[in-house]
Amino acid sequence: MTTEQLHTEIRSKQSFLCIGLDVDLDKIPKHLLQTEDPIFEFNKAIIDATHDLAVAYKPNTAFYEAYGLKGWHSLEKTISYLNNKHPEIFTIADAKRGDIGNTSAMYAKAFLQDLGFDSVTVAPYMGKDSVEPFLAVKDKFTILLALTSNEGAFDFQTKQAGSKELYKTVLETSKTWQNSENLMYVVGATKAEYFTEVRKIVPDSFLLVPGVGAQGGDLNEVCRYGMNDKVGLLINSSRGIIYASNGEDFADKAREEALKMQSEMSIILLDTQLSKALNII
Amino acid sequence: MTTEQLHTEIRSKQSFLCIGLDVDLDKIPKHLLQTEDPIFEFNKAIIDATHDLAVAYKPNTAFYEAYGLKGWHSLEKTISYLNNKHPEIFTIADAKRGDIGNTSAMYAKAFLQDLGFDSVTVAPYMGKDSVEPFLAVKDKFTILLALTSNEGAFDFQTKQAGSKELYKTVLETSKTWQNSENLMYVVGATKAEYFTEVRKIVPDSFLLVPGVGAQGGDLNEVCRYGMNDKVGLLINSSRGIIYASNGEDFADKAREEALKMQSEMSIILLDTQLSKALNII
Repeated sequence: MTTEQLHTEIRSKQSFLCIGLDVDLDKIPKHLLQTEDPIFEFNKAIIDATHDLAVAYKPNTAFYEAYGLKGWHSLEKTISYLNNKHPEIFTIADAKRGDIGNTSAMYAKAFLQDLGFDSVTVAPYMGKDSVEPFLAVKDKFTILLALTSNEGAFDFQTKQAGSKELYKTVLETSKTWQNSENLMYVVGATKAEYFTEVRKIVPDSFLLVPGVGAQGGDLNEVCRYGMNDKVGLLINSSRGIIYASNGEDFADKAREEALKMQSEMSIILLDTQLSKALNII
Repeated sequence: MTTEQLHTEIRSKQSFLCIGLDVDLDKIPKHLLQTEDPIFEFNKAIIDATHDLAVAYKPNTAFYEAYGLKGWHSLEKTISYLNNKHPEIFTIADAKRGDIGNTSAMYAKAFLQDLGFDSVTVAPYMGKDSVEPFLAVKDKFTILLALTSNEGAFDFQTKQAGSKELYKTVLETSKTWQNSENLMYVVGATKAEYFTEVRKIVPDSFLLVPGVGAQGGDLNEVCRYGMNDKVGLLINSSRGIIYASNGEDFADKAREEALKMQSEMSIILLDTQLSKALNII
């Protein structure tokens, strides 16, 4: 998938919603536990109920690995279902990998080639040669952690590293890497004021934004500071949507929550278009 | 396992060798490819041939994930074989994970509890709440990336972060986290002179040291600057040992290479004991 295709999808659905598939067997409706593959059945129902409202899905690999072989099988079935049924939807393996070159190449093979995700999240700590093997995969994206949505982001990411904060050094340095056009970045919604700084360094890149909803981030604030000409944002919501209900109506309730977010997004997109037409931004 | 038990094992085997099980189907002997589970058969042969010379094994999860479900199954069989046959051996899931708290808790469950590894490698970029869920698991260890062995280590890890380099900030900050007594650290052998600095901050911790051999690090230099009273080092070798031959003699050749390293280590340990007895260090 190209960023142009993603942008087209955003315009068409009037949405830049990404739904996080962080499936915890303790939290899904009890009646699914009797099925052969409760995780996949849950994901399938969520996808069927929300695919016209979301432009991306993001399974978090931890929640699959936590169930061992069965979990990995559910992950394979989920990405395969998405790729076959909704090839226009952007898929993210939220794996936060990163290792020395030959090892990162194996992770890139696993997620981008074999499983067929459009993108994978990667941690920057090990630098250039730990990220470039992901970037080398054509027509795929590497979503680099820049400024995350958790408390621990303040431990290192916002510490001065040289003349600027570490997350800025990460953003700037990453632009010099080979195939850096295949980069997107994770920037947490809980720190909306930082988006201005981020946009100074990467005005054109897509940002994957966790932290709206359960973690307290504000959609309007994020859009105000983080949106660019091509929208350039994927706002993730996981728990707020997928666990809206743990009864038999879980998919309907998930749709309701997704619709709320999509509606807010469509208003923001309309406002932006209107403002542009009137030349007031 | 406790660090005391690990130290006992080191004394008994006169070795602080960790063997990295980074199994690439393109590199293992051809005759194994006809078996039902070539990765496990390879690991089993390597373990059988070297278990008296090594105190730790470190499967790198990327090399298993790259083979999907089959690879994950091989990983399960490998750790299960180690835990059943050689419970005295320290096991490391080289996974380099790290995410927001609820997600790290899932990874901790996967690797430390369900698979039953003694330890897991974790990336520090997301800070305290991304690491503490691993540290919370009793009698298990979290091996935090501090200074890695690759070129990219100089991109961020050695950048000044506040008053000192980032890897030092990571080391110091991590000591304030809950259950920090369960921390070990990755420090690459290719930067032996840095060990003096590392030991000023974490004098007592075990360090997992990649980069000896294929990546050019020198064993004697590492020991000179990095060893502490309880040895405190696990020197990893992967490719140099497991791919010593790709013929039918691969396990014998792996043993030869492991024996070379163990011999060097036993000399270093003897020298250290002798020097201590003579009070010259």
